Amino acid sequence: MYLAKVYITLKPTVNDPQGLTIKGALHTLGFTSVQDVRAGKYIELKINETETAKAEREVNEMCRKLLANPVIENFRFELQPAQSD
Amino acid sequence: MYLAKVYITLKPTVNDPQGLTIKGALHTLGFTSVQDVRAGKYIELKINETETAKAEREVNEMCRKLLANPVIENFRFELQPAQSD
Repeated sequence: MYLAKVYITLKPTVNDPQGLTIKGALHTLGFTSVQDVRAGKYIELKINETETAKAEREVNEMCRKLLANPVIENFRFELQPAQSD
Repeated sequence: MYLAKVYITLKPTVNDPQGLTIKGALHTLGFTSVQDVRAGKYIELKINETETAKAEREVNEMCRKLLANPVIENFRFELQPAQSD
């Protein structure tokens, strides 16, 4: 059993309206030191596999096929052994 | 200048319909080894501060006041020095 932590971010050249809105709200609240905000997604997956290499291949494919949009997003992930529950 | 990486996750006891939907979609695509999915947010902030302690305090307050909903969400963040651009 593995726990995969997947981080999905917009590519640097892609416009990020959500990030801009958050930045505006933070400025309104008085956090004027905030210079840039980029919003992304964080997904935790529990994978029932015994081999690290296979789990890694699977998570990579999940990201490419469903979790991230490779046209506008980058993704990276970490795998760590997890206890089944 | 600091780069803050903020991870926001739903508390373990909170129902996560988005995660369930992703899990269902992954199963449909043939990734049947996926046992659990939790969806969260990942936010990168550039903070124009010179002191680590002050930047840390600010990011913590931003999370509590705007970025996370402390009733149903947990947050954690990492700070690292960043180049201004």
